[in-house]
Amino acid sequence: MNVVRPLKRDFGRPGHGWRRRLYAIVVEAETDAGRRFDALLLSAIILSVAVVMLDSVEAVRARELVVLDVLEWLFTLLFTAEYILRLLCVERPLRYALSFFGVVDLISILPTYLAILLPGFHVLVDIRLLRMLRIFRILKLPLYFDESQVLWRAFVRSRHRIMVFLGVVLILIVVLGTVMYLVEGPSNGFTSIPVSMYWAVVTMTTTGYGDIHPKTPLGQFVTSLAILLGYGVIAFPAGMVGGEMVTAMRQRQQPARACPHCHTAGHDGDAIYCKHCGAQLPPN
Amino acid sequence: MNVVRPLKRDFGRPGHGWRRRLYAIVVEAETDAGRRFDALLLSAIILSVAVVMLDSVEAVRARELVVLDVLEWLFTLLFTAEYILRLLCVERPLRYALSFFGVVDLISILPTYLAILLPGFHVLVDIRLLRMLRIFRILKLPLYFDESQVLWRAFVRSRHRIMVFLGVVLILIVVLGTVMYLVEGPSNGFTSIPVSMYWAVVTMTTTGYGDIHPKTPLGQFVTSLAILLGYGVIAFPAGMVGGEMVTAMRQRQQPARACPHCHTAGHDGDAIYCKHCGAQLPPN
Amino acid sequence: MNVVRPLKRDFGRPGHGWRRRLYAIVVEAETDAGRRFDALLLSAIILSVAVVMLDSVEAVRARELVVLDVLEWLFTLLFTAEYILRLLCVERPLRYALSFFGVVDLISILPTYLAILLPGFHVLVDIRLLRMLRIFRILKLPLYFDESQVLWRAFVRSRHRIMVFLGVVLILIVVLGTVMYLVEGPSNGFTSIPVSMYWAVVTMTTTGYGDIHPKTPLGQFVTSLAILLGYGVIAFPAGMVGGEMVTAMRQRQQPARACPHCHTAGHDGDAIYCKHCGAQLPPN
Amino acid sequence: MNVVRPLKRDFGRPGHGWRRRLYAIVVEAETDAGRRFDALLLSAIILSVAVVMLDSVEAVRARELVVLDVLEWLFTLLFTAEYILRLLCVERPLRYALSFFGVVDLISILPTYLAILLPGFHVLVDIRLLRMLRIFRILKLPLYFDESQVLWRAFVRSRHRIMVFLGVVLILIVVLGTVMYLVEGPSNGFTSIPVSMYWAVVTMTTTGYGDIHPKTPLGQFVTSLAILLGYGVIAFPAGMVGGEMVTAMRQRQQPARACPHCHTAGHDGDAIYCKHCGAQLPPN
Repeated sequence: MNVVRPLKRDFGRPGHGWRRRLYAIVVEAETDAGRRFDALLLSAIILSVAVVMLDSVEAVRARELVVLDVLEWLFTLLFTAEYILRLLCVERPLRYALSFFGVVDLISILPTYLAILLPGFHVLVDIRLLRMLRIFRILKLPLYFDESQVLWRAFVRSRHRIMVFLGVVLILIVVLGTVMYLVEGPSNGFTSIPVSMYWAVVTMTTTGYGDIHPKTPLGQFVTSLAILLGYGVIAFPAGMVGGEMVTAMRQRQQPARACPHCHTAGHDGDAIYCKHCGAQLPPN
Repeated sequence: MNVVRPLKRDFGRPGHGWRRRLYAIVVEAETDAGRRFDALLLSAIILSVAVVMLDSVEAVRARELVVLDVLEWLFTLLFTAEYILRLLCVERPLRYALSFFGVVDLISILPTYLAILLPGFHVLVDIRLLRMLRIFRILKLPLYFDESQVLWRAFVRSRHRIMVFLGVVLILIVVLGTVMYLVEGPSNGFTSIPVSMYWAVVTMTTTGYGDIHPKTPLGQFVTSLAILLGYGVIAFPAGMVGGEMVTAMRQRQQPARACPHCHTAGHDGDAIYCKHCGAQLPPN
Repeated sequence: MNVVRPLKRDFGRPGHGWRRRLYAIVVEAETDAGRRFDALLLSAIILSVAVVMLDSVEAVRARELVVLDVLEWLFTLLFTAEYILRLLCVERPLRYALSFFGVVDLISILPTYLAILLPGFHVLVDIRLLRMLRIFRILKLPLYFDESQVLWRAFVRSRHRIMVFLGVVLILIVVLGTVMYLVEGPSNGFTSIPVSMYWAVVTMTTTGYGDIHPKTPLGQFVTSLAILLGYGVIAFPAGMVGGEMVTAMRQRQQPARACPHCHTAGHDGDAIYCKHCGAQLPPN
Repeated sequence: MNVVRPLKRDFGRPGHGWRRRLYAIVVEAETDAGRRFDALLLSAIILSVAVVMLDSVEAVRARELVVLDVLEWLFTLLFTAEYILRLLCVERPLRYALSFFGVVDLISILPTYLAILLPGFHVLVDIRLLRMLRIFRILKLPLYFDESQVLWRAFVRSRHRIMVFLGVVLILIVVLGTVMYLVEGPSNGFTSIPVSMYWAVVTMTTTGYGDIHPKTPLGQFVTSLAILLGYGVIAFPAGMVGGEMVTAMRQRQQPARACPHCHTAGHDGDAIYCKHCGAQLPPN
């Protein structure tokens, strides 16, 4: 019940030699060198994301074209070096290259090289931001880990109900979209059922851009009903997750008192005898 | 308390013969043939809904008119066959025909036939999507069933309070709509009390299209108050459902097993011995 | 702890005579005659509200002027009769006339009479809808009463925290409104601090009409921060009410086991001895 | 665990003399004179904020220029006097001057003086509203203090999870902003990645101004997915805070009083005898 689900896959730690020392810096987060390496990488990622953002602003790009391009190449070379180091120091490089973060690492350097061939392609460099997820290694202190455990457990427990809930929402959206397509029609902006469904999502989630909105009295009446319905539906996922949270947190609070005889854990706070073997428990 | 509310009504299972075998395929979801039949039907429903959607997009319809019409007729013939099979294999066909899903089944094939007579009618074919609800048979695995039970129980328990809540919301909407009709008036877009009420729903649910919005200072002040009120009111259904969820989940977790020796209740599901006196518990 | 808070004030029940019989019909909801009277009144209120609504729609009013006016006078006479009957049958008529529902009753008939003098005044007749609150007498069945008790108790318990919360929200709105007035200025639609505050309410509650929206990059950045803040703040009232709901419902679930010696109620489910006098409790 | 976190820092209370008496009025909130001083200050703050607001409305300013300026100077002199009194009566004036409320006090008077030099500067006077926070001294009655304690404790406990949550939201916003910049492009209003991120915040929080909105079918599809995602994400902070609320309230309700005879804990606050063995409990 209390088993910690490892979020980081293991790609093999070399036993000794320079690869072992490299591994300690590049992959491990508990060593001093590893922490410094992670901090450097975190800064580089954030700065390179900022560069990509500024790059997309026409006024900035027009003025600082050279600076932005130089920075971009510096970051790309840095991340290329990191990618090669990672491939070198793990025991199973192919398994790393095919893992989620391995693919992210590759995608975050490829676009710059591809940009020489295809100029319009370099905006994709921003996918590099996904690399920030890897930075959660630093946060893997017990406290943070524990928190994300509670979040993750609450999500995993709710997943069946969230699926049922999403199914209901999708059916409602198709039905509402079709009804409004029939009621309002193309002349009022509901040009097709897919467009009507886009409007239904925007409406039932209470976003309400206003680019499409009902104009006929009947359409306004149907919309009012639909929003009130969406308003009630929104209570369900919040309630679900809230309920799971309470359950998950209560479990965390329970003292980890184990039976001295059969080592079963998870006894209630007021338990006197082991629920598994009947041996007397130590006082709480 | 723990009685399972059957979501599927029973229309009578034939005892033997070809109708019994047909029933096993068409109605039952636990047999291999039934599961395959359900999977086929699920695919057909999703594809036919996609066809209706594409049919409503002018550009697609102009280009692929023949393909869409052929597909539509194929699906209609398939669903007609299913409808007839269902009528044939159940003991009480009339009861099925008049049930919710029986009516949905009829509605999902009728429009295509009617479309020959009335060309503008065939958009209604999309109601076929309601048939997707019937597909939840596949999901009737214990786990999913259990989840929807929790959802359903939480909803049923909250229904009186949700009614009280909706009553309060409706009264607020009429009052706010009338006040804004008086404050802003027809010249600012609040052309009548019903239109003002439509605006009140769009506002108090924080949807905010912006097609109608207050223009006078007093109207903006009243609107600010109304939104803050709606903001507080939204907390109620979420809190209600959340509370019910916690209660419903706790009940599911606690099997009402009591110790035969000291009558202490509240043992965990995996407990073998009483936590209070150490006596052996009855099997769960 | 479990005392029921009466939502209906007592205006004195006559001891006998025609006033006693009138009281049983007009005020009491438990008698057969009272229930029929309430049902008649409920229908009259809903219909009269519908008449006022239709009256505000220009197209309907132009066509059905006479019908609407006749209906309006019928309802006004009916509610006038009810008001007089209420004044006649209670022991303390002045106290009734000055109570919340007494004032509502008066306001719901006055406008029609005033409309003869001031033609633009008759839209106010809609305040008659507030009378619907009185109709909750019918709902005063134990179940409904119990539910509204839970709702009311959760609200009363949360009121101090909701006040603190609203205070924080108001300060945030003034600060955000002023900052945006300085950042965007009158040329971008933020014409004064009150208008900016109206925008801040519309934004932080995620309503977002779009009639006023940031145009400068700095304004868009400040707005993004403000919305994310509002997003976090919305969690607080929902969490508060949710927490109170769980507490309120747990109390309702506790069996009302009273001590046979000192009659103290509210013992825990696992209590063996009375917590007040130490006497042994009856088994649960 | 139950230590009360003092929200008011101590700047030293003089032992005797006129400074001691001044301190009792200006700083302390429990004395009669202190309460009257706080009430006066509260009114002055609210009125001065109203003056600044009216000052920003062009129509009012044009008409009442002299009145507003005179009032502004009166309030500034009053708050200047208060600031000097505070500096005089505390033992460590520098520590007060550098504290949060000391800086707020200074900022709330400086702008008026600066306005003589820089005319456009005086709108900042509104920062004076932050002084309202100091007014929570009045609310420091046990009840209110207790409530804010619960709020504060729930927030402090959730802070790690809220940080994790905000990190996830920021990554989603950068990813969504970039995707929409690529899908819709500058010609549809998504002029740069920062602007797209502003749109992503406005969309995923369901605010939806409508100043920028997707126009291509693919963009509308991506937006629909993003809103449904944001809809699910909003459930997390509400669930978190809700869960913490329940935990925080339960702890407040359960005094950790154990029976001196059988050591059973979990007695109600009003219990006199142990519910398990009937022995007398120690006073609460």
